[in-house]
Amino acid sequence: MFADTLKSMPTDWAPWFDVCHFLLAALAVRKEVGLSFSRSNPLATWLATMTASFAGSMVANPLLGKPIFGAISSEYNLGLATLVFWAVFYSPGDIVYTLVKNPALYVPICVVKEIYRAKKTLGGINDAKKVYPEHELIQIVVGVIKGNGSAFIKPFTRLVAGQWSPNKSEILKFSVTSKGCLVAAILLVLDASGYLIPPVTGDMLYLGIVTTFIMTKLSGVLAEQIDPYAPLDIVVRAATGGLWDGEVNEHSD
Amino acid sequence: MFADTLKSMPTDWAPWFDVCHFLLAALAVRKEVGLSFSRSNPLATWLATMTASFAGSMVANPLLGKPIFGAISSEYNLGLATLVFWAVFYSPGDIVYTLVKNPALYVPICVVKEIYRAKKTLGGINDAKKVYPEHELIQIVVGVIKGNGSAFIKPFTRLVAGQWSPNKSEILKFSVTSKGCLVAAILLVLDASGYLIPPVTGDMLYLGIVTTFIMTKLSGVLAEQIDPYAPLDIVVRAATGGLWDGEVNEHSD
Amino acid sequence: MFADTLKSMPTDWAPWFDVCHFLLAALAVRKEVGLSFSRSNPLATWLATMTASFAGSMVANPLLGKPIFGAISSEYNLGLATLVFWAVFYSPGDIVYTLVKNPALYVPICVVKEIYRAKKTLGGINDAKKVYPEHELIQIVVGVIKGNGSAFIKPFTRLVAGQWSPNKSEILKFSVTSKGCLVAAILLVLDASGYLIPPVTGDMLYLGIVTTFIMTKLSGVLAEQIDPYAPLDIVVRAATGGLWDGEVNEHSD
Repeated sequence: MFADTLKSMPTDWAPWFDVCHFLLAALAVRKEVGLSFSRSNPLATWLATMTASFAGSMVANPLLGKPIFGAISSEYNLGLATLVFWAVFYSPGDIVYTLVKNPALYVPICVVKEIYRAKKTLGGINDAKKVYPEHELIQIVVGVIKGNGSAFIKPFTRLVAGQWSPNKSEILKFSVTSKGCLVAAILLVLDASGYLIPPVTGDMLYLGIVTTFIMTKLSGVLAEQIDPYAPLDIVVRAATGGLWDGEVNEHSD
Repeated sequence: MFADTLKSMPTDWAPWFDVCHFLLAALAVRKEVGLSFSRSNPLATWLATMTASFAGSMVANPLLGKPIFGAISSEYNLGLATLVFWAVFYSPGDIVYTLVKNPALYVPICVVKEIYRAKKTLGGINDAKKVYPEHELIQIVVGVIKGNGSAFIKPFTRLVAGQWSPNKSEILKFSVTSKGCLVAAILLVLDASGYLIPPVTGDMLYLGIVTTFIMTKLSGVLAEQIDPYAPLDIVVRAATGGLWDGEVNEHSD
Repeated sequence: MFADTLKSMPTDWAPWFDVCHFLLAALAVRKEVGLSFSRSNPLATWLATMTASFAGSMVANPLLGKPIFGAISSEYNLGLATLVFWAVFYSPGDIVYTLVKNPALYVPICVVKEIYRAKKTLGGINDAKKVYPEHELIQIVVGVIKGNGSAFIKPFTRLVAGQWSPNKSEILKFSVTSKGCLVAAILLVLDASGYLIPPVTGDMLYLGIVTTFIMTKLSGVLAEQIDPYAPLDIVVRAATGGLWDGEVNEHSD
């Protein structure tokens, strides 16, 4: 099955999947802190990039009672992330940065990252299941955190670089990527509990998730960002007062 | 014994105790973030309310080496807290909020909450005793944290809602409620170590704690807040320089 | 061996080593928050001093999956730290503060503290080794954190006292002390792995570390701070763009 291939995918090409993940983490940090900061503060830049690179587990581990350093338990991965960090920030002539930002490389990197994201969401659900087998909501939350970890750790990443912006966080402005991880995590947990409606199989679901992740991401890279989860926003808005807002506004405190 | 009834109380009416606790947590968050924020940011409002609802264990668990998510290990309680959150913030016509703020309902809710607070303080002491059986001070601290958790987690609750006020925290301005939990925790730990002065029994102590909690709270709700712990402040102030402050002020740095 | 004596040193005089450590932690907090704050907020001052006094383990424990309160697992030590806190902030006539700031006492205290620092760095490495035996980088990081814990916890210490300065942190401006701990931790881990160049023995290394720590510290206390790690800065600056900075600056984003 193609879905099985996707699920087991990193096994053979694991380092390449991680390289793509680390590249995008380093690019995001570079955009955040700026190049001149990286020159004057290499240590803080490195630490910020590492928190972005290992974000998912760093956030999820204390929630599940595991050591935070468990996120970087492999020295090989830490070395790889450091190498990528160095290349993105300090390569002579900025050659690596220039290459990676070229669409011919950037688009495939994003595709690999989105395949990996689906895998990480599923991995988060399974990690949480080991600690809280009966608690589907915790499984979903950990799935979302692992799927889009660098977004959730961003306030801390910024703080390491001496920036503090409490009113900019993923929780205050849920990105399309996080919404995708949320919908995917809900469906994956439903599937694991056998609640999937018959014609849909687990494999079809996984393929659908990966496809949606890739399409959503590429739309943002190549054209205008599409938001396939907009109907969800409408439902949430309706349920949280949108339906009867007229009467309520008077009580505003 | 009446004290035994109070100590074992939530067992039978557990959901109602929790409902009262969740109601007051949601009311506090609503006062903090405002109604209009709850409309534009339902996710952040929900998360802020959940941190307030499960505050005690969320703060105490990492201190005791337990998973933070252990605080919400029951899916039933999480669902109940979410239902209460929805009702307080989004009920049509704001009916639930209006009802709960009515003294005929608000006063009994506060009474139940204060009975529960005594139970939670004792529970925190016993939780800490399992991990640090010989460490009375840790037991007292965990008792206070569990007794008045939502106050101690407030900086984080505010942060989730995009507000950041480092100079407003329970540690900088210890509330009457926290002082009550502190005195209660000290007395409960003394009792457990057999240091209570003879005519006072453990049951009398527990009844006294519950009564003091309720009276202190109701004085604040119905009239002017009384502070039965004011003598304590005077002792602390005397011990921390008040007695010889004249000589010291010159060295001020 | 003299080095063995140094390594095992605190065993006999443990309380005195801890008193010196607590004294310097309390002095640092007093410098940070000011005397008038300590009068109006004894609780916050105490908590800030305790975080500084037990900083190393408080930061390292959650990273290694241990309870944060594990840092103060001995009630005796907590009592000792509290006594020192009281003496430094509130002694009548400010006598303790005046005495401790006198060079005849301050210099020996600093010497003891630096001997202790080497021991703590080594202890951190060994603590990390128990959890991550194969992960040298984590061992080094925990060694640095334990060696200079109060510096790394400083943002939190300030926060407890109601101050928040995200752009002042040890990570943004690595002090000479932290650099010393970093070099020491790297050398100690290399030694443990048997990578030390033959004429140098483990004992020589440890003696050298203690001597360098003391000399660096005393230079700062008695005259101008020397920075024996300046060559390291040059290497880092060269590796992070210094060598080819001319070409890179144009790409600045």
